[in-house]
This record gives sequence, C-alpha cells and structure tokens, in this order.
Amino acid sequence: MTFSVTILGSSSALPTSTRFPSAHVLNAHERLFLIDCAEGTQMQLRRLHIKMSKINHIFISHLHGDHTLGLVGLISTFNLVGRKSDLHIYANAKLEENLTYNLNFFIEELTFKLIFHAVEQNKHQVIYDDGKIVVESLPLRHRVPATGFLFREKRGLPNIRKELIEKYSLSLAEISSIKNGSDLTLPDGQLIPNNDFTYYSSETRAYAYCSDTLYSERLVGLIRNVDLLYHEATFANDDIKLAKVTGHSTAGQAATIESKSGATKLIIGHFSSRYKNVDLILKEAKEIFENTIAAEDGQVIEVPVKRNN
Amino acid sequence: MTFSVTILGSSSALPTSTRFPSAHVLNAHERLFLIDCAEGTQMQLRRLHIKMSKINHIFISHLHGDHTLGLVGLISTFNLVGRKSDLHIYANAKLEENLTYNLNFFIEELTFKLIFHAVEQNKHQVIYDDGKIVVESLPLRHRVPATGFLFREKRGLPNIRKELIEKYSLSLAEISSIKNGSDLTLPDGQLIPNNDFTYYSSETRAYAYCSDTLYSERLVGLIRNVDLLYHEATFANDDIKLAKVTGHSTAGQAATIESKSGATKLIIGHFSSRYKNVDLILKEAKEIFENTIAAEDGQVIEVPVKRNN
Repeated sequence: MTFSVTILGSSSALPTSTRFPSAHVLNAHERLFLIDCAEGTQMQLRRLHIKMSKINHIFISHLHGDHTLGLVGLISTFNLVGRKSDLHIYANAKLEENLTYNLNFFIEELTFKLIFHAVEQNKHQVIYDDGKIVVESLPLRHRVPATGFLFREKRGLPNIRKELIEKYSLSLAEISSIKNGSDLTLPDGQLIPNNDFTYYSSETRAYAYCSDTLYSERLVGLIRNVDLLYHEATFANDDIKLAKVTGHSTAGQAATIESKSGATKLIIGHFSSRYKNVDLILKEAKEIFENTIAAEDGQVIEVPVKRNN
Repeated sequence: MTFSVTILGSSSALPTSTRFPSAHVLNAHERLFLIDCAEGTQMQLRRLHIKMSKINHIFISHLHGDHTLGLVGLISTFNLVGRKSDLHIYANAKLEENLTYNLNFFIEELTFKLIFHAVEQNKHQVIYDDGKIVVESLPLRHRVPATGFLFREKRGLPNIRKELIEKYSLSLAEISSIKNGSDLTLPDGQLIPNNDFTYYSSETRAYAYCSDTLYSERLVGLIRNVDLLYHEATFANDDIKLAKVTGHSTAGQAATIESKSGATKLIIGHFSSRYKNVDLILKEAKEIFENTIAAEDGQVIEVPVKRNN
C-alpha cells in the first residue's frame, strides 16, 4: 500500500526560479490528498504526471495567498475537464466566502459538487475519517489562524494466528468475532484473551504537515512518533528574531520539534527566498536531528510499510 | 533600442506539462509591459530572470481565469518586496472589483499605488501613450468582452540632412522648428518644404496581441503592417466548428488574418491541450503564411531595428 508525499512547492511566500510556493500531495492507498494549494499547484501536478482526478480532498493550512492562490485555477481546470465527483475542501470558514465569490466571478456553473468543511483552527480534532485514513487538525502558531494536518492509516482488522484456528477448531463466526475484538470462551469456561489470537502484519503509518508555524511545544504531543514530519524551516538559526516576528520557525526549531516528538524522518521546507541555497538550513537541522532532508519541488518521499516480525 | 516579446505562457485554459496559460512580456526600450497574467506568471518571470520591478503596466485582454489568475499572486509579491512605484492595470472595469475584493482578503496594505484603467472592450482607441510607446485597444470577438493590444513605437523627431544645414546656414532655432515640422522660408520668399530637410533613420516597430478571439476581419484594418502579430490558434483547421463554439481561432484563420494585414511575422499560441504537439497547427498556419512560429514558453522574439537607407 502506497504511503508517499510529493512536494509540489517548497518556497515560502516568494517563489524562486526553482521553488514554487506551498503544496504537497499525500498518496495514501491511491487516495490523493492535496495539502495547501499555492499558485502553480495545477502546473506542478501536470508536470509530475499526478492524476488530478484522484484528488477528492484538499486541506488548507491557513488563508495566506502562498498556500491558497492555486485553488481557483485548479477548480476551473476540474470544471473544464467535466469533473463529476465531489470535491471536499477543509479550511478556515472564511475561505468558503472567498471561493464562492471567485468561482461566481470566473465560472458559470460547476460540473461537480464542492463541499466545504470548516476547520476550527485552534482545535486538535479528527476532521476526516474514511475508515482507512484519518486526518486530525493540529493547531499551529502563526500570524493568522493556522492548522497543520496529521494523516494516519487506520488499523484494519487483525490477522489470527493460523495454528490457533486449528488448535481450537474455530468456526467462521468465532473467527469474525475474534477479529472484531472478542475473547474466546472455551466449553470448559476457560477464557483465552483476544491478544493471544491476533496480530498485525504491519504497523500503521503517519505523516504530519506543520506549516506555517512558530516553534510550538504543543505540537510535540500531537504528532508523537509519526513516520514523516514536514515542518517549516523558513529561516536559518541566525534569523531567529525574524522567524519570531513573521510567525515562522528556524531549522533548529523544526529539528527540535522532530527530536522531541520521536518522529522517524523530518522534511524541512517553506524556505525563505533570501537563501540562494538551503545547505546551511539543512546542516543546522541535521545537527539536531540527523534524519532530515530539505524539500525540493518534485521530490517524492515514500514511507515504507512497517512489517512486524 | 530593444523591442522584444517573451512568451511566459502558450497554453489555452488547461496548462500542460510544458505550457503555462497566457502571459507575454513586451520589452520596449527597457520598459516592460505585461500582457495578460495567468496563474504562474510570477514563476515564469523568476525563471526567465525578468526583472519584475520594471513592470509598471499590465494589460488584461479579458476576464477569464487563464488570463488573470496570476494577478493577485504577482501583486502580493510586489508588496512583499516593498515595491514603491505605481502599478497600472488596464482591463475591463469588472476586474477592479475582483482585485479590490481579493487584495483586501489577502493583503493588509499595499506598499504602492495600484491605478486601474478601465478599458472599453468594444472600442479601438489609444489607451496608453508615454511619448515613446503608444498602446491601442483592439476589439476582439470572444465569448466574453475581449480586447487585443497594439503596441507601437512613436516616431521621435526626425533627423535633418546635414548638407542642407550647411547649404542654408540654418540657425539652431530654425533646426528645432524644422524638426518639429515647419517648412523653411528663405529671405527671397522661396519655401523649402519640410520633407526636403528631414528623414528618419529607422522605422517604428509594432507588436499586436490578439487573444482570445474568433476569426475577425475587423482586426485586419487595425493591425495593418505590424512587425509581429501574436494571434491565438487554439485549434487545428479540422476543429473549426469547435473553434466557433468556444470563441477561438484555427491555425488557418490566424494565418489568414496575418496574411491580409500584411504583418511581417506571426506567432501562434494559446494551444488547446488536446494537441500533444503543435506541429500540425504550425504546418497549417505556414501553408498560408510562411513566416509563422509556434509559441513556446520562455521563447524571446526580437523585432530588429528597421534602419532606413
């Protein structure tokens, strides 16, 4: 089962000659979740040959142009190609007003249903659950209300140890019941706990997107042990004051959050255009957390299946 | 004196993996005029290392998203870098309302003055004149009101034939008067016509941008003898019915306009994404007008100085 993130844009507000502003695509089991949708998102999707029609859910972190200005163009394109399936957008309620205004201005009639889900940006809660993937909102600290997103695979039903099926001659009804969490009571009244029967062949995977944000200790508890954390690192450590004033993080701060949360891998991005290259920012993050990479547009980061023994 | 056009986007409404939607930059004597501003325009400007701060005038042909959706992002970027100089936008009056709404939504306060010039889209008239360059609106035929733009160098003052300065011992006052169009009256009452004295070392150059439009014979008279004509050719000849329904032109129609208007060179563009490559469209245009090129993103087309002998 695929679980991978594609970076569509890795710059902060000012795009550069090699970096577009913020947008990520998470492919979770061939469902595509678009996270932020800056100007140029649809071009990056084309370039990277990502099938746009598979995008049914768009999550917007906050209402700055460098995270949202690609929405009207993307929706127009969906309309031009005659999209039929519903499109869900999860964002601050104010975005709905803006979208309604602009879609009325630019588009005669949508060929599909646009369903808007208002996200309460200061709350940590489940905002999406399709039985396979669950998404939680992560309150961030920025100049305007902002929310990160945690995407997590849900556990399916466990496997049952074959040898025990034989040993206790389990019926299909008993197997189903045990898979759903029941213990087994033997004819002599002895109880065999559910745990003895069940196991999971792999662990669930999780990806957290945290941008834009100041350093926020609150995040640590909310993203504990994710496999992949994207945390903005707009600035190098020397520019920590600038980070504070503008509501952003430094490389060191991003890596500290990673390190405290116990995440497996860190991607930093949302780089200020003031840095001609991001080697220094990456180096500073790696000093605190070695397993860090610097986002590049077009990059795909796979989270491998975590098999249990 | 530079007079060149850079193609920022050559696709029609749906961008492709190699083509962004419509935007051109005309460099006329190091003044940069932006013509249309689709999504991604600011990225193309960055990539092509075009100095954004030199853009003071933006001309918008019509209010479809694939010609306008880059405006809010570009203006946001101007604001972030602390632009001070006025920015002039020439477009259908309705765009002002849309821009005002979106700039209020996304930007706290502009660091520069935005000056909006409403273009009457069904009129052929001068809409800009800075003494060196003049811009005329060109009524087009599209599904919504649309205007092309004709950019023309203005003639400066003529040169005076040196040998006649000596022959008639002209004073500085007389030279200035002749340069400004007067004839010369000799002491004996004889009149030497202005034409005898004056000449221009080069001819003025002109560029016409005609997109989006149906085939329109009216254009022919308005763009006569331009050096460079950009005319949309969204479709190949076989798709002429589709062109008519959608308010666009075929390759053959674009080349016919060029041919009838006596222009020197034709650029076709605004290609539908249905064509994997545009060889056929180019071939069809060339059958009618040989000196045709197919627009490519990033391409620069120079109009050389036309020296008189």
